[in-house]
Parts: sequence; structure tokens; C-alpha cells
Amino acid sequence: MTTISNDIFLPIKDELLVLDTNLKKMIGAKNPILYAAANHLFYAGGKRIRPAIVLLIAQATTKSAKIHPEHHRLAEITEIIHTASLVHDDIVDECETRRGVNTVHYKFSTKVAVLAGDFLFAQSSWYLANLNNLQVVKTISKVITDFAEGEVRQGLSTFDTNISIDDYTEKSFYKTASLIAASCKGASILSYTKDNMQKNFYLYGYHLGLAFQIIDDILDIIGSQKSLGKPAGSDLKNGNLTSPLFFALEEKPELYKFINREFQNKGDTEKAIAIIKITKGIEKARDLALEHVQAALQALENNQKSISINTLKLISCYIINRLN
Amino acid sequence: MTTISNDIFLPIKDELLVLDTNLKKMIGAKNPILYAAANHLFYAGGKRIRPAIVLLIAQATTKSAKIHPEHHRLAEITEIIHTASLVHDDIVDECETRRGVNTVHYKFSTKVAVLAGDFLFAQSSWYLANLNNLQVVKTISKVITDFAEGEVRQGLSTFDTNISIDDYTEKSFYKTASLIAASCKGASILSYTKDNMQKNFYLYGYHLGLAFQIIDDILDIIGSQKSLGKPAGSDLKNGNLTSPLFFALEEKPELYKFINREFQNKGDTEKAIAIIKITKGIEKARDLALEHVQAALQALENNQKSISINTLKLISCYIINRLN
Repeated sequence: MTTISNDIFLPIKDELLVLDTNLKKMIGAKNPILYAAANHLFYAGGKRIRPAIVLLIAQATTKSAKIHPEHHRLAEITEIIHTASLVHDDIVDECETRRGVNTVHYKFSTKVAVLAGDFLFAQSSWYLANLNNLQVVKTISKVITDFAEGEVRQGLSTFDTNISIDDYTEKSFYKTASLIAASCKGASILSYTKDNMQKNFYLYGYHLGLAFQIIDDILDIIGSQKSLGKPAGSDLKNGNLTSPLFFALEEKPELYKFINREFQNKGDTEKAIAIIKITKGIEKARDLALEHVQAALQALENNQKSISINTLKLISCYIINRLN
Repeated sequence: MTTISNDIFLPIKDELLVLDTNLKKMIGAKNPILYAAANHLFYAGGKRIRPAIVLLIAQATTKSAKIHPEHHRLAEITEIIHTASLVHDDIVDECETRRGVNTVHYKFSTKVAVLAGDFLFAQSSWYLANLNNLQVVKTISKVITDFAEGEVRQGLSTFDTNISIDDYTEKSFYKTASLIAASCKGASILSYTKDNMQKNFYLYGYHLGLAFQIIDDILDIIGSQKSLGKPAGSDLKNGNLTSPLFFALEEKPELYKFINREFQNKGDTEKAIAIIKITKGIEKARDLALEHVQAALQALENNQKSISINTLKLISCYIINRLN
């Protein structure tokens, strides 16, 4: 998997080190199996993009770029929620590897994975309530319901021939963009910025999240097991309609027969990938991601120039570069 | 299963009907499988004891017994959290039936059960945040971490010969009493009662919850599959150390050989139940439950007499009567 260049995160290098130490403390599960599971998760090559964005917005919106303790806590909560959602997602999608290592339910058991996910979600709710800011609590708890909605849609729906690109966008919002957007907004709420600024940071996160998900979807088709940290074509196997597939289907409706879960034969995933690759599906998906990156950059327009704002812009460009 | 007499709930009969309608609306999952799972859960003979207690405390603590809309919402949240915890517990404990019907993971799948539980926990967090009361948010989110802590302890520990009665009490607190105690406190916070009163309602819920759990543990040993709605001896099978077993072990240490998960043979559960029945384990556990019921009644002492307070007292007596 392409990892984000450490250079980009230089302005918050120290803060990210503190984050790692704190995550370990916050989880601090008394049970050794759970501790091992949580540790396994947090240290399996996570890119820490979500907390990095929170910390950068904190720097950009506070006087003398002085990040508040609440910003640190929000960055940690964001990573915990993200991790919790991955553990349960992996049970639902029956993934055996993620980020190049075995998933919790595969390495330990489904039981441990259910417990670990619940424990992490619970910890995040508790730390969230203790931020003592009702607006942030509301903003972030909306994300948890969005996750559940997204998990349900993805986990319990097979391919639907009537799905539109808007449905796809909505699904990606629930799955990825909602958390990024809400934590961007949360970071600016904690700096007591004006509503308009909060709205713009939300938009930045929203478009960044969608671009991120689209690129992930493309990588699932063009990547190798080694570069992805999980087998290629997982979305196809699990019946997730993603944007490259959506565009490819417009061109080659015969793809349906390979991707319908009920009738999947050995080799169908490889055949479907081969067909998608000869359509304009991947190109069109990349263009869509680019539109979202532009919208994300646009949302940062009204901010004063600073290293942090610049880094936030670089992150959105980095996302597209993951394809190269 | 003994169901709570409808007569006891007469003072809040109408409120409980509203609760049922609202629970259906609040879940309102767009996905038909999830909707079926949630429906299956909410209508499988739940006794609604938790929301009933919230509504009764609301009546007892407001002028002219006028329950606020926020009280109604808290009662609903309480039932949703309880239900979510059952779904995930059943995956962890590998239960096939509960309340006389198949569990969600058995009737649908583990996938659906993970999703349904996450969805319900997420909905409860969202409704909780929207109560707009930080103190209540904190009080209830503590419960969710307690659940996770309890689930982990129960789900990931086998019998420990060094466990004390205090460890057992702590485990039962996490599993059952924490939610009841916190929702009792939450109901009185929403009525803006004094701190002392909040503390007493918390104590009422704490002791009631512990008594409830002890009686449940006894029923697991003396009940039949029909009366329990699940097979008898499930706790023994799952390696949960409960109070009757704890007391029985003091008398007959040879019980250990039947209940250790690693060495369980067919018929061991039945043998263990037979041994427990000839010890004073059940009697001692019942006495302990009775002590908690008395403490619960004591915690209500300072309240003005009213139908609601009387009903709260009746509920604590009903709990002991479940054994008859």
C-alpha cells in the first residue's frame, strides 16, 4: 500500500507521536486478548490521515497555531472510531487481511472482533461526551449512525441494477466521507470559529473523503495484493458497487453476469476486472475523484495562507497521486 | 419465562404503548433485513422493565407527574441500548434462543447480528446526544463502556478459581446494574432534581439491577428451557461464574472439574446443576438478592408517597417473586 509521505506530516510530526502514545493509553484494556487485538489494529500500518487532518485544522484555526487539548482528544477519538468500524466491517465482509496483516476476526476470532469493535466504539462515545461540547458530540455521533447505515447498505445489499451514481456517492459518504467531514467540522468548532468557516471545513472533509473512497475503489481493481494489503477485487467479490464498476457497467452491461454474488464462479472476479480495465470506467472514476479534490481545495480558499492550510491542500493532492 | 404482571405497570400503561410505537419509528431502518431483525428483537417478549422504571421515576419527580418528552426519549434509548447489547452478547455467547425465540445471529446470520447491534448502538448515541443534556450524555455513555467491559470480561474469561464475590458483583454491575442505575439517575437529572435525589435513584437502580442479575443467575440453574426461553445451564456452559455457583463452589470445590470449559464432556452441565442444587448455593444467592432488594427499597425512603414510588417498590419485590 502506498503510505503517505512523512514529509507531508512534518508540521504535526510531534503531535502524531503524542497521538500514538495516547491511543495506547486510552485503549488500556484490562483484558490481555483485547489489548492484543487493539494493539494489532492500531499498529498495523494505519496512515493516521484522519487525526492528522484534525490536528492541521486545529493549527490553522487557533492563535499562534496552538492546538488545544480537546483537539488532541478529538484526533484520537477520530482514529478510534475509524478503527472500530474496520474491525466490524471485516467481520461483515469476511476479509482475512487488511493493511497486509490478518484481520482481528481471522487472527483471533469473530467473538474477539465483535468485542473489540464494541469496546472501541464505547470508548470513543465516552471520550466524546467528556469533550464537554454538545455541538461536537452531536456532530460526531451522527457519524456513528452514518457508519451503521453504510455498513448495513454495503453488508446487506447485493448488486442492484437500478443504482445511480448518486446512490454510490451516498454510500461512500456514509462509509468514509461522513467521519472525515464531521471531524474537520469538529476541529473547527473546538476553535470557536464562525459557522461559515465550520461549514467550509466540513465541505473540505466531505469532498476529500469522497475522493479518497473513489481512489480506494479504483485501487481495489488495478492494485495487486501486495500493494493493497488485501486481495484485489474484494469489492467485486463482496458485491459492492463502486464507481469504476458503475461507469464500466454503463459501457458493458454484460459485466453483471460476473459480479452477481449468487452466481459467482471461480475466476469471475478476474474476468470482471479484465473487462473493467478495457472500458473507460477507471478513467471516469478518476475524473470524478479529481472533481472532488478540486472542490476540497476550493473549500479552503477563504483561509489565510499557513503551513497547515498548505498541508491540507497537499493531502488532497496526495490522494490522487496514490494511483501513480 | 415469568413476565411482569401488567397490573404493576398500570400507572404508565399508556406511556408504554407510546414507547412501543416510538421504538418502531426510531429504528425505522431502510433495509428490510435489518428492520426484520430489529422487529424480531423488540417484539420477542421483552419485559420493558428498564423503560418502565425511567417513566415511573419521571412521574415521581415532576410536578403533577407530568413526564417530559425527554423522559420518553430516555426510556426509549434505554431499551435500545439494552437490545443492542443482547444481540452482540448472543453472538459472543453463541446462544441460539432468547426469550423463547431464535437469536438474531442464529435466525439471520452473524453478519446481520453485528450490523443490527452496531445500528442500534449508533441510533442510541445519536438520540442521546440530541437530548441536549451533557450530564445525561456522560451518565449514559459510561454505561456503554461498562457493557463493553462486562462483555469482554464475560466473553473472554474462563472460570477463575481466585475470583471473589466482589469480582462477581462488579461483573454483574457492568452487565446489568450499570444501565439500570444510570437510566434511573438520568431520569431524575431530566427532572432537575437535587444531587442527593439523583444519587438515591442511582442507588435504587444499582441494587435493583444487581438483585435482578442474581435472580437471573439462579433461574439459569433451577429453570427449565420452557420457563427460561433458552436452555438451562447456559452460564455454566459458557463459563460464566455466577453467584449460586460461587457459593456452591465454597461448599463443594469438586464442582470445578465439571465446569471448566476446556474439559467439558457431554452431561457435565447437568451433573454440575445437580451438585449445585444439593448445596446451599441457591439459598445464599437468593439471600444476597434479597439484601439488594432491601437496599433498593431503602434508597426510595426519602421520596413522598405516590403511586409511582409504590410501583418502583413493587418492581423490586416482583424481582424476588420470579423465583416462585
